[in-house]
Amino acid sequence: MFVTFLSDFGLQDDFVGTCHGVIKSIAPQVEIIDVTHGIPPQQVLQGALVLANTTRYMPVGVHLAVVDPGVGSSRRALALRSGDGRLFVGPDNGLLVPAADRLGGVDAVHELANAEYALESVSRTFHGRDLFAPAAAHLASGVELELLGPPLAADALARLDLPEPEIGENRIRATVLYIDRFGNVQLNLTREHLQRAEVTPGTVVEIEIELDRYYAVAARTFADARKGDVILYEDAYRNIALAISGGDAAELFGAAPGQDVRIRLRGL
Amino acid sequence: MFVTFLSDFGLQDDFVGTCHGVIKSIAPQVEIIDVTHGIPPQQVLQGALVLANTTRYMPVGVHLAVVDPGVGSSRRALALRSGDGRLFVGPDNGLLVPAADRLGGVDAVHELANAEYALESVSRTFHGRDLFAPAAAHLASGVELELLGPPLAADALARLDLPEPEIGENRIRATVLYIDRFGNVQLNLTREHLQRAEVTPGTVVEIEIELDRYYAVAARTFADARKGDVILYEDAYRNIALAISGGDAAELFGAAPGQDVRIRLRGL
Amino acid sequence: MFVTFLSDFGLQDDFVGTCHGVIKSIAPQVEIIDVTHGIPPQQVLQGALVLANTTRYMPVGVHLAVVDPGVGSSRRALALRSGDGRLFVGPDNGLLVPAADRLGGVDAVHELANAEYALESVSRTFHGRDLFAPAAAHLASGVELELLGPPLAADALARLDLPEPEIGENRIRATVLYIDRFGNVQLNLTREHLQRAEVTPGTVVEIEIELDRYYAVAARTFADARKGDVILYEDAYRNIALAISGGDAAELFGAAPGQDVRIRLRGL
Repeated sequence: MFVTFLSDFGLQDDFVGTCHGVIKSIAPQVEIIDVTHGIPPQQVLQGALVLANTTRYMPVGVHLAVVDPGVGSSRRALALRSGDGRLFVGPDNGLLVPAADRLGGVDAVHELANAEYALESVSRTFHGRDLFAPAAAHLASGVELELLGPPLAADALARLDLPEPEIGENRIRATVLYIDRFGNVQLNLTREHLQRAEVTPGTVVEIEIELDRYYAVAARTFADARKGDVILYEDAYRNIALAISGGDAAELFGAAPGQDVRIRLRGL
Repeated sequence: MFVTFLSDFGLQDDFVGTCHGVIKSIAPQVEIIDVTHGIPPQQVLQGALVLANTTRYMPVGVHLAVVDPGVGSSRRALALRSGDGRLFVGPDNGLLVPAADRLGGVDAVHELANAEYALESVSRTFHGRDLFAPAAAHLASGVELELLGPPLAADALARLDLPEPEIGENRIRATVLYIDRFGNVQLNLTREHLQRAEVTPGTVVEIEIELDRYYAVAARTFADARKGDVILYEDAYRNIALAISGGDAAELFGAAPGQDVRIRLRGL
Repeated sequence: MFVTFLSDFGLQDDFVGTCHGVIKSIAPQVEIIDVTHGIPPQQVLQGALVLANTTRYMPVGVHLAVVDPGVGSSRRALALRSGDGRLFVGPDNGLLVPAADRLGGVDAVHELANAEYALESVSRTFHGRDLFAPAAAHLASGVELELLGPPLAADALARLDLPEPEIGENRIRATVLYIDRFGNVQLNLTREHLQRAEVTPGTVVEIEIELDRYYAVAARTFADARKGDVILYEDAYRNIALAISGGDAAELFGAAPGQDVRIRLRGL
């Protein structure tokens, strides 16, 4: 049985390793797959998007996710089952819902309330170790979801506001969702949005980020552009993204998650 | 059988992966848990504290730890058994002792002297790969501790000077032990120290770091404070730490391991 | 069966975790060893050198390597068998060849052309996930190399230009290959090159990097030098490297991969 694990813990400290130790102490036969621990600290939206994008590439199992700025407050701790039979464990702050929505919806939710499936002493600041990792380990060992605590209504869960693009006649207003290691800038757009605005491969558009403007060309892949060109392409998670062939687009633009990006069809 | 692995190797280079390869080549059935490889380069005290804090969350096994500024010198290489039956492998520079002390004390120590349990050629600069990882793999495969080399007296081991706080009438002099990814500043204090100085939840204290002063409030958790407040709280490893609710305390303070922190009861 | 995995993906994003998920979905029984994912973005030469240095420490298995600036172009995707029976998977850009050359040479190469062993939909920008990881997983599950696609001639593979040192009467012209976490500066020199130039332990040489000059002493290990001395030593992969005892040589020199380093015997 697999536990996948996504968090904002980073790998500089022992947070991730300690959670691995807890899971393996409870369920030695379970295998852990680290999705990423590089979610920027406390950025629940980024965590939710990465979880939603990646979970379908993971074997069916228990999907542990911890980005938890509200630890120690009254926010609830959850385990839920998605329509396709996966189990998710994490805080009730919207982190788990977009992934579950893409995988058949929220089928059942239970609050983590049964102390039998937590560590003996639960700290106020590290529920990843004391509450979530143990719950994931017990679920992966075959403990029934229903035993973890009382059921909750799916519509009582906290949900995130996902930024929506505005698609106008010859212009698009989008939002930066994510910047990756290569400086690629993921936007809240899909190919369908571009098609509605009549942007097709080869179309040159004007991009405005903060007060700066750039030309970009819609392209299928990096290899279609000359070195140094800004391109607008569909990334591997089917989001539209900005990149520079052979360069770092985020650095050029000074881009950061949450920023507005305006795209205009050139000359219009 | 489990090998846990802590080091200052970082994950940018191949050091950690190569040690994994060596362990798996010797003992394919062994499972490795990476505690962390983010100990700052050559900071033995930080490594010793993290090892001491985390090992009790790990399954009983072989606990490999390498923070080794003296590699290539005459410092000895060790394997030891703690009172609770765990095995530790690492350099004789004090790294292993605080963890063993918390887990039943040092029961037996042997020097890694038997070339049969090292790689064929031992380099002068990478004992993690050539000496420590092989020893850990062989121990995890069932080789007896006694076979690794001659016994040493526990009181002959190198030990670290752990900084001790000074607790005065209305003031405490503490030391920064560790800064984590979230900017939380761990001090060499426990709840008992605060109680002796009559600092209880809700107490406002003055903090002096370098030449700057701040107010902080003793709190149970981040959620007890307003956003931006400096709090003094018991962290998940039962050390007292400084944090900013929703912010990065280490950045505000310019804090670094080893610095003096003076805590005064306000108005006294 | 083992899959080892080296890339320039970093650990901040989900790229590595997603590839793990893909491998485990196809071949749940396979074990993955992460060699490193810290190769600087798109630096094929660095990746090739690290793969060549480390593979002999890995258990025999499938060795997946992805540093792939040409993804989406017409560069081919490969699987190859080395003379010692290991299997390598990655792009045809020279990344795999130096490792295979050290391990018995290229015994057989096949292009990854059989869609049966890729994900159902192959993106234009993430062949690590969609093409290379699935191929590695299938090979590790026992699929024959020959089934992955048509054979290629070994001499048709892309090869890298490895920088060669120039050894003169009393001088050496070398190139910086790699900088590690500790600031050690690996050069394209071996002990044999130093011997030809009559540099032996204790010899003091002059180092010129960019326009700055330093004295360095040839040493067997860090412990042979005084704190702060620049040393020239044979590193754990048998390359000659520059280091500062107790310091960061790369920072002092402002060193970066690809730079020229001139070494002169002092006083000549």
